[in-house]
Amino acid sequence: MGEFELLARMRERLPPIGQRLHLGSGDDAAISVPGGATATSVDALVEGVHFRREQASLSQIGRKAIATALSDLAAMGAEPGEAYVVLGVPTDLDEDGCLELLDGLAELAAATGTSLAGGDLTRAPILTVTTTVVGHADSPERLVTRGGARPGDVLVVTGELGGASAGLLLLEANSEVSSRLVPHSETKRELTGLVGRQLEPQPRLAAGRALADAGATAMIDLSDGLGGDAGHLAAASEVGLRIDAAALPLAGGVAEVAASAGHDPLRLAVSGGEDYELLATLPADRLEAAKAVVAEKAGLTLTEIGEAVEGAGVEIRRPGGEPLQATGFDQLS
Amino acid sequence: MGEFELLARMRERLPPIGQRLHLGSGDDAAISVPGGATATSVDALVEGVHFRREQASLSQIGRKAIATALSDLAAMGAEPGEAYVVLGVPTDLDEDGCLELLDGLAELAAATGTSLAGGDLTRAPILTVTTTVVGHADSPERLVTRGGARPGDVLVVTGELGGASAGLLLLEANSEVSSRLVPHSETKRELTGLVGRQLEPQPRLAAGRALADAGATAMIDLSDGLGGDAGHLAAASEVGLRIDAAALPLAGGVAEVAASAGHDPLRLAVSGGEDYELLATLPADRLEAAKAVVAEKAGLTLTEIGEAVEGAGVEIRRPGGEPLQATGFDQLS
Repeated sequence: MGEFELLARMRERLPPIGQRLHLGSGDDAAISVPGGATATSVDALVEGVHFRREQASLSQIGRKAIATALSDLAAMGAEPGEAYVVLGVPTDLDEDGCLELLDGLAELAAATGTSLAGGDLTRAPILTVTTTVVGHADSPERLVTRGGARPGDVLVVTGELGGASAGLLLLEANSEVSSRLVPHSETKRELTGLVGRQLEPQPRLAAGRALADAGATAMIDLSDGLGGDAGHLAAASEVGLRIDAAALPLAGGVAEVAASAGHDPLRLAVSGGEDYELLATLPADRLEAAKAVVAEKAGLTLTEIGEAVEGAGVEIRRPGGEPLQATGFDQLS
Repeated sequence: MGEFELLARMRERLPPIGQRLHLGSGDDAAISVPGGATATSVDALVEGVHFRREQASLSQIGRKAIATALSDLAAMGAEPGEAYVVLGVPTDLDEDGCLELLDGLAELAAATGTSLAGGDLTRAPILTVTTTVVGHADSPERLVTRGGARPGDVLVVTGELGGASAGLLLLEANSEVSSRLVPHSETKRELTGLVGRQLEPQPRLAAGRALADAGATAMIDLSDGLGGDAGHLAAASEVGLRIDAAALPLAGGVAEVAASAGHDPLRLAVSGGEDYELLATLPADRLEAAKAVVAEKAGLTLTEIGEAVEGAGVEIRRPGGEPLQATGFDQLS
């Protein structure tokens, strides 16, 4: 099967095109009629760097490729619109494998209302999936950047942290370690959930839009880890962020996995990355309304974990008071 | 230098952001205010598949990555707006190499009025450059697809053909072959020009917009080769295309390079690909006006090379009358 035939077979499997998309895959370019403002982000998953084919199914790899890209749109509070996918196909991946990968990707696209509008297919020495996503809003002002946090804002996070890192530990553990872990956990289901957090992240699109509507002043998705991503938000907003480690909402099973692997569970939540939850700042008087709307629209808990202060950098304090991490933290008094 | 520092250094080198771009690189997503309609296309260059670092400079690789993507916008008659670039960086490419690649890319972006609006940087086993470009038009109807050719339309091509293939032959020839070629060519400058066609293709953006304004009914850029790309246009438009091989505008030096390498020069023009000229159909009464406006706006010759007929497929006839290529050609009478 040649490139064109495979592209044609892929196109047959695409979900129906969305209302903004005037012309989808198959021409020189896709044609869209965007309306107000667009948010555009690109993301690449590279075999051996971001995933291993021994650990994830092709469907999961395709799914994660679009999930991580859509997570950036969630962090803007944008409504997902179109996705463009470039597949780099190694010789040991056959047509059925390409279609399985695309099916995983298309399934999440359909579930989130994203049109697969175009793409490209090329030979490559290893499997790579590069995804461009375009989201929409009525105006640029409706989109939430990293740069609007103000001193006095509360810092909140959606859902639970540390799960993706714990899941990766489980995936990388040999069977001896895994069997040692099971009796320490409340349920095997919890461990499966952690692996799911690693392999099948959920872009928090509904929560992102709810937070934008609720008056979020700055927002970022947690891809690199809370510590690093909070630093990006602090730098863009020119504020300091003070985080209470005791308030961090750890995912169920993270403490047990961390203990069995000899890690500090708070470190998994702070440095682990890939949770793809949203970190946002809000005026303090908007907190309760934001919690309610995120619960209603996204079914997620919104947790207050700290505050923005005059200054710079990020400080994360343990319950006892000693800093877990302090990156360039400098609070002006 | 870490990923974030390199990204920051890259951002410093970006040309000023365009008027449609509200927020450029550095947040979760770029924010744009598109206006009427957008045309979006993605393209990937993979080391060992699309280029070799022994044959092209890093600056040329970056330049070609955005040039081939912009060529798709040219084929829609769109005005270039924003570009998003994902760099897959192997361990043997250092920061200066990344910046040299980006400089080549940014130079063509600036020359074409394209804002580098975002991107991503990742480790990869080989160098890959994936580019998403977004072009603009006042309305979807102003963009030219592959699907609007009608029987009776004339078939035209911009510029000259076969140059990129001949340039590749020169790059791949050993020095003995190269030295044999030089005396056969009128000038050494001509050979350098052919290599330039391969390494530094020009997206025909001005010609594409001029053809769209002049009433082009269908348009495609010549990336795969005239034969294949004409087939895509014929299929999308549900017409047959009859092409007169004697009319094909061969680039200077192509005949000599082909002869020295034992190739048919017409085959280089028809099957070679990568010329990135535009193939378009026009109502016959628009031909002279289109020639004039393409010459004026783009400084390019527009050559009539055939016609659209009722039927299907592509037939390319040699001067003598025998078919050079006939792919599913079936003219209805």
